[in-house]
Amino acid sequence: MSQEVILTGIKPTGMPHLGNLVGAIQPSVDLSHKKDTEAFYFIADYHALTGLKNAKELSQFSREIAAAWIALGLDPEQVVLYRQSDIPEVFELSWILACFSPKGLMNRAHAYKAAVQKNQENGETDLDAGVNMGVYTYPILMAADILLMQARWVPVGGDQVQHIEIARDVAQYFNRQYQREVFTLPEALIDESGAVIPGLDGRKMSKSYQNTIPIFAPAATLQKLVARIATDSTRPGEPKDPNASTVFHLYRLVATESETDTFRKAFLAGIAWKDAKDQLYEVLNRRLSGPRERYHALLEDDRDTLDRILSEGVPKARAVGAATMRKVRKAIGVN
Amino acid sequence: MSQEVILTGIKPTGMPHLGNLVGAIQPSVDLSHKKDTEAFYFIADYHALTGLKNAKELSQFSREIAAAWIALGLDPEQVVLYRQSDIPEVFELSWILACFSPKGLMNRAHAYKAAVQKNQENGETDLDAGVNMGVYTYPILMAADILLMQARWVPVGGDQVQHIEIARDVAQYFNRQYQREVFTLPEALIDESGAVIPGLDGRKMSKSYQNTIPIFAPAATLQKLVARIATDSTRPGEPKDPNASTVFHLYRLVATESETDTFRKAFLAGIAWKDAKDQLYEVLNRRLSGPRERYHALLEDDRDTLDRILSEGVPKARAVGAATMRKVRKAIGVN
Repeated sequence: MSQEVILTGIKPTGMPHLGNLVGAIQPSVDLSHKKDTEAFYFIADYHALTGLKNAKELSQFSREIAAAWIALGLDPEQVVLYRQSDIPEVFELSWILACFSPKGLMNRAHAYKAAVQKNQENGETDLDAGVNMGVYTYPILMAADILLMQARWVPVGGDQVQHIEIARDVAQYFNRQYQREVFTLPEALIDESGAVIPGLDGRKMSKSYQNTIPIFAPAATLQKLVARIATDSTRPGEPKDPNASTVFHLYRLVATESETDTFRKAFLAGIAWKDAKDQLYEVLNRRLSGPRERYHALLEDDRDTLDRILSEGVPKARAVGAATMRKVRKAIGVN
Repeated sequence: MSQEVILTGIKPTGMPHLGNLVGAIQPSVDLSHKKDTEAFYFIADYHALTGLKNAKELSQFSREIAAAWIALGLDPEQVVLYRQSDIPEVFELSWILACFSPKGLMNRAHAYKAAVQKNQENGETDLDAGVNMGVYTYPILMAADILLMQARWVPVGGDQVQHIEIARDVAQYFNRQYQREVFTLPEALIDESGAVIPGLDGRKMSKSYQNTIPIFAPAATLQKLVARIATDSTRPGEPKDPNASTVFHLYRLVATESETDTFRKAFLAGIAWKDAKDQLYEVLNRRLSGPRERYHALLEDDRDTLDRILSEGVPKARAVGAATMRKVRKAIGVN
């Protein structure tokens, strides 16, 4: 492989919101247009199974997330898009990597430690209460996702850096044991912007705060949500501080630079909150109406297209996976 | 499936000895001739990977163990014989089952507890030192081996009963979660004989004591090993206690009942140890010469036959596995 591989896993957990779009989806879609790289995107449906034991939801969320990424600009002709569950090689490799993963590595993984701490705080005598083995071994499956595709770069948020390090460690253990470069050593591509997108109440936009703006909400819902954004009590005509305003923050995320300048001046000149929100709604809807339409078309009217797109990625991904597995199986003596 | 499935996993760990033959292989081969059951036998090469990180040995041991079972009477026409590593469905199912396995189940598994205890005894501060995730999650892979083939009966020694119980527990969690009978609940078929086969030094025959009689050793080696069996100092002509003698114990394992009667009388009549050992060698060699010849033929002169046999089992096993996976994937919503 002459081109470097960038790999992004997308966990299907329901409709993404504006914070996801700006913080993760958009940067990742932009990366897919980078030259000299081959971009792999997969729907991590089997990762979702650690917590989601409802067939309808898992199936629907997987389709939704695929439709969302395509609607937001991911070009299936340019990248390899596939569902994790369509790549059996991932799971075989996951077992092999388990044999090279010290148990101590898993004990130190953040998600597991957080679960243990929660049990401690709740006075549980069994610190593993409620932890299933999917949660505990999740970093190994993630390592298999990455190493199978010989990924060099994995774009992640700060909380996922440890998982890339685990994948890298395990790859090194394996390469060293068999004295050959079977696996490319992956590196985290960390989103340095660290931009916090405010939600309707001014806190970080997050599903757990129920303060999100879902990307694909109908225009009327979008308008209602914008109307609910918390503002201060300055009246029309009174100057407003753009930097302290959620309305202004959200506006600049989707507007052009000159629009943002004009909007800032309007704040200083005392624009009424209602007018400011109307303008925010306009730019938001301009940005989201196209994706919204494509999203609903893919999901509702054109399910065959979505299925076809998801199935077209499979042979490409499996070809790369099979090439890796040939090397792996030869190295360990299973062939 | 109208017939009940019996499943036996065979871990490739080098040439089996007489103790394995009498205690495990022969009873298991006998089971394969049982009516109203469908017998599956698999070479558990990926289980061996938890400890064996040498390609040549893993590959060679897998072939040896397949050749051994066929040489000892397993009829590949009557049973489904396959290598675990040829069944990708096993590993996908293993991940799925992990999501239904409480971590506490693994903490209580014997093999892991033994490793922790050893670390404790050695004064290790890290109780997980030297434990890889293959060792720790091994019961889940074993559950996948069993549940994928919808096995009803799993012949095991006493030390493996817990693993069958884990497989059964996980199958029940899954069936209950999705309110349907996706998995057959497996049961251990326990070898009740509990017969301890003595080794050359009179202790239990075991590789770790280096007191074994390898099944496929050449006749000359077999004779030398028999000559080394520990005896008491009674001289020719002095009566000997058959029940206290390893020579007698081993003889009765392979001789006919009337031969054993005659041999017992010879002991009481004071047979010389040399003569007793010669007679033991004769019956051992009679029992083992045929298998020995077939074994070496399969392994050395007729490797293509062995490969063909192992590959013929794969489509049969995968057909059963694929049927199970269709049900599983439908239940969880990955389809």
